[in-house]
Amino acid sequence: MMRSEFDFIQHIKKKYGLNHIGDDGAVLPKDAETDIVITSDMLVQDIDFRIDWTTPKTLGQKALAVSLSDVGAMGAIPKWAMLSIAVPDEIWKSTFLDEFYDGWHLEAGKFSVELVGGDVSKTPTGLVIDSTVWGEVPKGEAVFRSGAKPGHGIYVTGELGGAAAGLRLLEEGFRFSESNGARYNSLLLRQLQPFPHARTGAQIRSEFSPSAMIDLSDGLSSDLAHICRASGVGAVIDATKIPIHRKLKRIFRQHDEQLEMALNGGEDFELLFTVDEEKTSGKKLSQFFRIGEVATNVGTIELIDGGNTRVLEPEGYRHF
Amino acid sequence: MMRSEFDFIQHIKKKYGLNHIGDDGAVLPKDAETDIVITSDMLVQDIDFRIDWTTPKTLGQKALAVSLSDVGAMGAIPKWAMLSIAVPDEIWKSTFLDEFYDGWHLEAGKFSVELVGGDVSKTPTGLVIDSTVWGEVPKGEAVFRSGAKPGHGIYVTGELGGAAAGLRLLEEGFRFSESNGARYNSLLLRQLQPFPHARTGAQIRSEFSPSAMIDLSDGLSSDLAHICRASGVGAVIDATKIPIHRKLKRIFRQHDEQLEMALNGGEDFELLFTVDEEKTSGKKLSQFFRIGEVATNVGTIELIDGGNTRVLEPEGYRHF
Repeated sequence: MMRSEFDFIQHIKKKYGLNHIGDDGAVLPKDAETDIVITSDMLVQDIDFRIDWTTPKTLGQKALAVSLSDVGAMGAIPKWAMLSIAVPDEIWKSTFLDEFYDGWHLEAGKFSVELVGGDVSKTPTGLVIDSTVWGEVPKGEAVFRSGAKPGHGIYVTGELGGAAAGLRLLEEGFRFSESNGARYNSLLLRQLQPFPHARTGAQIRSEFSPSAMIDLSDGLSSDLAHICRASGVGAVIDATKIPIHRKLKRIFRQHDEQLEMALNGGEDFELLFTVDEEKTSGKKLSQFFRIGEVATNVGTIELIDGGNTRVLEPEGYRHF
Repeated sequence: MMRSEFDFIQHIKKKYGLNHIGDDGAVLPKDAETDIVITSDMLVQDIDFRIDWTTPKTLGQKALAVSLSDVGAMGAIPKWAMLSIAVPDEIWKSTFLDEFYDGWHLEAGKFSVELVGGDVSKTPTGLVIDSTVWGEVPKGEAVFRSGAKPGHGIYVTGELGGAAAGLRLLEEGFRFSESNGARYNSLLLRQLQPFPHARTGAQIRSEFSPSAMIDLSDGLSSDLAHICRASGVGAVIDATKIPIHRKLKRIFRQHDEQLEMALNGGEDFELLFTVDEEKTSGKKLSQFFRIGEVATNVGTIELIDGGNTRVLEPEGYRHF
């Protein structure tokens, strides 16, 4: 069997003794009060996006959003960013990059992030974008994937499956258009123009001191597996508690299909976190969705769906 | 005429009011004593390198070296790095990445740089690498391109044109091989496996307080033009003082050709700096090559070659 991207990163991490690798971002010392959190995401044409499915502006927004989300998932506030982009000649000659940078800056403006560097290069082939964002977090308070303990509640910040439903619509030939119903457009935008919880992450960190946090980029089943693996725990999830995107439910009517999208669809960019509920205010936590509990069965995620229980395999987005 | 990469970056910088863009790296505050210098470089297959001209290990070394060089050119000491790489399927399935990361770490080890993050992605087309390095410099002491003043001496740290000669040999079909003479191999390595002056830059900063510094990645004529433009000055260069790579001179015998490579060939990764010689020790400066002086003729570089003087146009590597 081919090694996965995850396996390769674990191999590199072990081989060279890299201690800062393997979470949503790296945590590095800044000064006596503050740590830096830094993260990079590469977006490749025809792997991570399709030019004809989006607009340059929307792609610019998403290129930044995916990294803002990672910084938020560490509980940090994003501050600075770098953007490297390799573009084919025909894109260079068009207004694509102008619109792309407009979209990027629109997103940056929402979070007061400043572009401080990067690179612009030509490529003989497809567009490649590398987005780097770093932010700040109070010293020692960055939230890793590795702190979940049996008994902790498992929460998500919002509805799931919308981005997967949007992807399905795109694959079926739908495109964002004024003439679509709002239902279709909101699912398409959920995929094309995700909202990163860059501030929510810091808020969750300061209010609830979560034991683990990750952003839902690969999909609930995969990202929860990342937390379980890093924390040396298992989990029990209640399918009836998983918040399924309301517009998804109106278009895709089968329960199994809805659940599949919510469990395994990536790119919702909601936050998934675990918290010791005995040490926090249940009332405030109730603004989020409690979907289950951390358990002792190391590495196993059980899904309770009505009367049935099954083991949930990580089937979210595998990069390759 | 097509806008250049340089024009585009100037446009973006102005449009969005980006104050940290446009030097070898961005300078950001760390703590009361220290600034951070951060830089990114994208390397694209068949634009910046050819797979069949190098080895995975050597490419890994160069991918890091180009960014170490930028950090050094700001007078900073590199500390951390991120590496994002998009790889085609056939490379993923081979030992390429293992050898590439070995080379990267070989280079990192020389400068005590730790890999703290990045991304690994698949691409349907060619290899793309984005290398980010950041380092530290005493607060307020980062060296920009913008401080050169008329009368300051212009220095380079080493021989020029070797990388251009290596590129020419590669284009002519030569490859690194034990059976080559040392002369050929050293020029090929000058192109394929550059040595970044990451420590020398900090040493020059602390010993000479240079008024401007840049690494010679695009070529002397272009990189000196960057300093002149940023500083609002001109320059006069003495062709007879330009140190031409000694192995280059043994293979390419024509003076004009040698000078052309030294002036316009990129990727030597020597440092180019200007210094107020009245405030520094001439004796220590003599370890470097003094090639000319900063002048008042804004934006014009004059080249004196024997009895002739001509205006030197920036003809180094234009990204596009």
